[in-house]
Amino acid sequence: MPDPRETGLTLDPKYDAAGLVTAVATDAATGEVLMLAHMNEEALAATLATREATFWSRSRGRLWKKGETSGHVLHVRDIRIDCDQDAVWLLCERAGPACHTGRRSCFYRRVTEHGLEALD
Amino acid sequence: MPDPRETGLTLDPKYDAAGLVTAVATDAATGEVLMLAHMNEEALAATLATREATFWSRSRGRLWKKGETSGHVLHVRDIRIDCDQDAVWLLCERAGPACHTGRRSCFYRRVTEHGLEALD
Repeated sequence: MPDPRETGLTLDPKYDAAGLVTAVATDAATGEVLMLAHMNEEALAATLATREATFWSRSRGRLWKKGETSGHVLHVRDIRIDCDQDAVWLLCERAGPACHTGRRSCFYRRVTEHGLEALD
Repeated sequence: MPDPRETGLTLDPKYDAAGLVTAVATDAATGEVLMLAHMNEEALAATLATREATFWSRSRGRLWKKGETSGHVLHVRDIRIDCDQDAVWLLCERAGPACHTGRRSCFYRRVTEHGLEALD
């Protein structure tokens, strides 16, 4: 039996026990992965409606629009969902650094067998 | 106080309660997000040692080298880790489709306000 969640065209996210799916944001122009975060149903709906990346902050326990204080919003140009609908991919245009450390991307270190290497 | 996990060059993944971090695999040439999966310490070590993407299968409860049966391995060209070390980014070269459905990427549908759109 084909799984309609995989084959169909109905949005039916497979939220985990905490009501979340994983969201990965990339720079639509460069393909760089900017950040990973989580979305509940409300965050996904807000992102779809506003085209600005909105997540669920697990640490703060509330909806969190990326850049709501810094102004470094992520303008969402396209949204994809994966086969089992437990992950979404946001193709974004950055209004500033994506990382709270001020770096363009949160992924600013390379993993090697001998530890990490700083890239920026 | 700066958090050494964010600022340092020591690999110190922040595994969740299940002992996992999230891993996102992209096509190193195109920037396309191919798949999301999870890694425990053993999977990360195996990926580092073999340069072939190896994950922890939550459904099967065992280490899982991507492509171990299909041959569709992901050759890992570079590995990055994010600021809080709970997510890794694998820049890959595909030996075949990344999705178990036979598609290049698991993210073969667009999310719109009116449902999903098939892309491939």
